Amino acid sequence: MPLVVKKFGGTSVGTIDRIKRVAQRVKKSVEQGEKVVVVSSAMSGETDRLIGLTRELSNRPDPREYDMVVSTGEQVAIGLISIALKEMGIDAVSLTGWQVPIYTDNAHTKARILSIDTHRIHKELDDGKVVIVAGFQGVTENGDITTLGRGGSDTTAVALAAALKADVCEIYTDVPGVFTADPRIVENAKKIDMISYEEMMEMASLGSKVMQIRSVEFAAKYGVRIHVKSSFTDEDGTWIVEENEEMERVAVRGISHELKEAKITVVRVPDRPGIAAKLFKALGDNNIVVDMIVQNVSHEGFTDISFTVNKVDADFAEEIANKVSAEIGAKGVERDDKIAKISVVGLGMKTHAGTAARMFEVLDKEGINIYAISTSEIKISCLIDEKYAELAVRSLHEAFIEDMEGAVKYE
Amino acid sequence: MPLVVKKFGGTSVGTIDRIKRVAQRVKKSVEQGEKVVVVSSAMSGETDRLIGLTRELSNRPDPREYDMVVSTGEQVAIGLISIALKEMGIDAVSLTGWQVPIYTDNAHTKARILSIDTHRIHKELDDGKVVIVAGFQGVTENGDITTLGRGGSDTTAVALAAALKADVCEIYTDVPGVFTADPRIVENAKKIDMISYEEMMEMASLGSKVMQIRSVEFAAKYGVRIHVKSSFTDEDGTWIVEENEEMERVAVRGISHELKEAKITVVRVPDRPGIAAKLFKALGDNNIVVDMIVQNVSHEGFTDISFTVNKVDADFAEEIANKVSAEIGAKGVERDDKIAKISVVGLGMKTHAGTAARMFEVLDKEGINIYAISTSEIKISCLIDEKYAELAVRSLHEAFIEDMEGAVKYE
Repeated sequence: MPLVVKKFGGTSVGTIDRIKRVAQRVKKSVEQGEKVVVVSSAMSGETDRLIGLTRELSNRPDPREYDMVVSTGEQVAIGLISIALKEMGIDAVSLTGWQVPIYTDNAHTKARILSIDTHRIHKELDDGKVVIVAGFQGVTENGDITTLGRGGSDTTAVALAAALKADVCEIYTDVPGVFTADPRIVENAKKIDMISYEEMMEMASLGSKVMQIRSVEFAAKYGVRIHVKSSFTDEDGTWIVEENEEMERVAVRGISHELKEAKITVVRVPDRPGIAAKLFKALGDNNIVVDMIVQNVSHEGFTDISFTVNKVDADFAEEIANKVSAEIGAKGVERDDKIAKISVVGLGMKTHAGTAARMFEVLDKEGINIYAISTSEIKISCLIDEKYAELAVRSLHEAFIEDMEGAVKYE
Repeated sequence: MPLVVKKFGGTSVGTIDRIKRVAQRVKKSVEQGEKVVVVSSAMSGETDRLIGLTRELSNRPDPREYDMVVSTGEQVAIGLISIALKEMGIDAVSLTGWQVPIYTDNAHTKARILSIDTHRIHKELDDGKVVIVAGFQGVTENGDITTLGRGGSDTTAVALAAALKADVCEIYTDVPGVFTADPRIVENAKKIDMISYEEMMEMASLGSKVMQIRSVEFAAKYGVRIHVKSSFTDEDGTWIVEENEEMERVAVRGISHELKEAKITVVRVPDRPGIAAKLFKALGDNNIVVDMIVQNVSHEGFTDISFTVNKVDADFAEEIANKVSAEIGAKGVERDDKIAKISVVGLGMKTHAGTAARMFEVLDKEGINIYAISTSEIKISCLIDEKYAELAVRSLHEAFIEDMEGAVKYE
């Protein structure tokens, strides 16, 4: 009897009618002989409403109490799904994070799952029930409620699938799967049938918002097969699985773009050992995550150091950069919020040379200047002017995906 | 160091501003050297919203899942109160029913408290924290969330006060206390300074909605001193305490009225033994609570039997009465929804004769016909036409409360 974990996002349970549709879908699985564990997010808009209430009282609400308030969104959703199922004659039971229990560390608002006790879930499944688990939440050893951070329901689903050794973890969302590029920008963007964990992690970290990156890491670690699909159709979506040889045939799996970063440049930095370390230590000490870093070639003993950070951290990062700039005798700090990071991702890059060169060529042909470059084994990212972002994505998609000669190389 | 349990109803925490005001009030108590345990209801309207969601899915939502959904209202409120207190520099911690834990039986939607483990609350109080407990909810031995039924937050507060041996249980509400009659009807209604548990139970069961009756029973059983007061002022409200000799001096403490009942009459019932038993057994078997019962004097071997039930049960009760009527060969069933039950309540009745006579006299003088009468040691209730309800309350209030000679007798 196959065991399936089905995760529904906020949009999929956003109204009473949609909850009924989720229940119908679950009923169908049960009737096909599957054991089903459902993981649900809060109804769309609910988490934001709850966060709003806490913010009306405090700019920095106490994290433990914030979790107390915000975790209720999922609790409401799982109770409603269970009621809907029972109304259709399917036996069901909802479980909060502490009822499972899903143990986490005590890093409130961004807790990590430490372990899952599967006894109660197995017992309820053996009793013939559908088990509906609240996503996004857990409980500490001391019995305090925690939340896993935004998008944490994906992590709950994958962790449960791993703990229960489920046959598949289905992630239902409002899009039909993972695309080769953002379909709102690229008309010819295609649904990807199969993608490796590693590629998906790069896509997720680069702004393709289908899945939370931490949940993909988790799936990779425990070999959980993920199937991302639309909650509105019955079509197959995108499978996220272990990489295989077949996959390496494709040099570029997808093109992603990210507009959330800002670039900060410390100008005319004396080119001495330890200067860069001083800057990035100061940023790290203040919990600011730096993404790309570029240091120009030294010119007459001076250089420029640029880095990018998430826009929400940019004010603070600029302040720190200014302080360090003064200390080290640099000329000053410049900031640019109008930038975009465009990336091409694909396992095939490991074995196919020339992807980087082709990428630069395409951008150059469109007259797009590259501010910075960063690479991994399966990804190349270029920082460009924000106003060229859509043009760059379209051109790269055409070159690497639509023009099959450029995208797929047969060994 | 005095220990105080403070319970706030939905109106008192109905907006973010009101939650801040609650926090201010708690802060004041802490600064005056009190240990404070807060019990909160859900923000007003929230419980109804949550119930509405469950009803959209099912006319009879599964009770366990209903509790899962509905219990979130209080959880949000306690988290917000705690955030508000911390923002004011007062250390606080919120606890749900299962976190305390407050153990109940598994009668979902109307569970009864079985025991309260006070270890965690004492530990948090000893750490100098204000403890904020979710009202209206508990947990079964199996770890399922239960709710105590409407108004159950009062019971939570009183039960906690008993378990913690608190010096007083303060019930904050949107009125200044318990009144001698409904102030919306009787202009001269006065706040009662002190009332016995027994009187309060009668008042509560008769429609004075300040406190849930079960919570007063609980307070009586464990001798918890209750202080009902307004959450909007600092004035003293009404103390609910053990009866004392002083109290017996007053024959009538208050006048209450209840418009929620319907009267059903089985007409021309053959007057044989066992007929009434048959009717009321059928009602009882279907969980319909019957309040007043009147059987007329038999006339030529036939009699009429009337009884009252809550209006929400009236359709079902009428259906049952019709069935029994046919079985026993009665003439038929009549129903009247336009009735009112008017009651005078007072400990002093135990020792002062003539209250009933005076009550009938007052009603008669106003030309109000009495359909039925029921009495206890400290209460007389009369069933009358609904259209005379306000007139009856005003006249009785004048006779027993405002006219001091009629109300208070000095031994």
